[in-house]
Amino acid sequence: MDCIFCKIINGEIPADKVFENDKVIAFLDLRPVNLGHTLVVPKKHIENLFEVDEETLKEIIISAQKVAKGIVGALDLKGFNFAQNNGAVAGQIVPHLHWHIIPRREDDGLHPWTRTEQYAEGEKEKIAEKIRGAIL
Amino acid sequence: MDCIFCKIINGEIPADKVFENDKVIAFLDLRPVNLGHTLVVPKKHIENLFEVDEETLKEIIISAQKVAKGIVGALDLKGFNFAQNNGAVAGQIVPHLHWHIIPRREDDGLHPWTRTEQYAEGEKEKIAEKIRGAIL
Repeated sequence: MDCIFCKIINGEIPADKVFENDKVIAFLDLRPVNLGHTLVVPKKHIENLFEVDEETLKEIIISAQKVAKGIVGALDLKGFNFAQNNGAVAGQIVPHLHWHIIPRREDDGLHPWTRTEQYAEGEKEKIAEKIRGAIL
Repeated sequence: MDCIFCKIINGEIPADKVFENDKVIAFLDLRPVNLGHTLVVPKKHIENLFEVDEETLKEIIISAQKVAKGIVGALDLKGFNFAQNNGAVAGQIVPHLHWHIIPRREDDGLHPWTRTEQYAEGEKEKIAEKIRGAIL
């Protein structure tokens, strides 16, 4: 398996681990947006939020919450972003499901997602209806 | 309670709902980063990822996965971002826990989180140790 996260999980590639249990591992991102930027990763090779079964998803989220609390305590933070990207088009670089925990500080210069788009007349209602109809 | 999401949940303020169950509601964001941008919100007023109990967290994440699948199907997407902000410093505007599902398309002009910071010599290991020690 040529997956860099699987290699970290198998111990073939070193990483700065901060948490590990049966199902989940967390380690520092080598390309941090801010120092302390951490990735929370299921040990099973799962590509994205679509592929993951409910039990694994629950275990990841509970572990991620624990890790986030630890990061906030350790680094004395007032906030953090908790983000997960699906698909190359969304900025997912490693195709193995992972959550980013990004420590945030005042005036750290990060301003993601500030853009606001506008719906045309009636478009919002139409899109909402389409989504509603597609949720199983 | 002067919380805009609580008012949406109580029906005091209208919203374009796409999903609802006992514990969770999802509706279109009025300030979409891309059209179809949806928020997934617990009905209970919980401020952030710290305050949320494990059972509620599990219910939100499973509902969010369902909603995300619906959005991807309805809008024929190749990807999406799944993001949650904690604290004003992290861009959390409404202090009621919520997940953003942001539809992504090729060349949509969004490039969040592209910055890379550098660790000083030995700093990475020191931070990892500190975080490890703070995770309960």
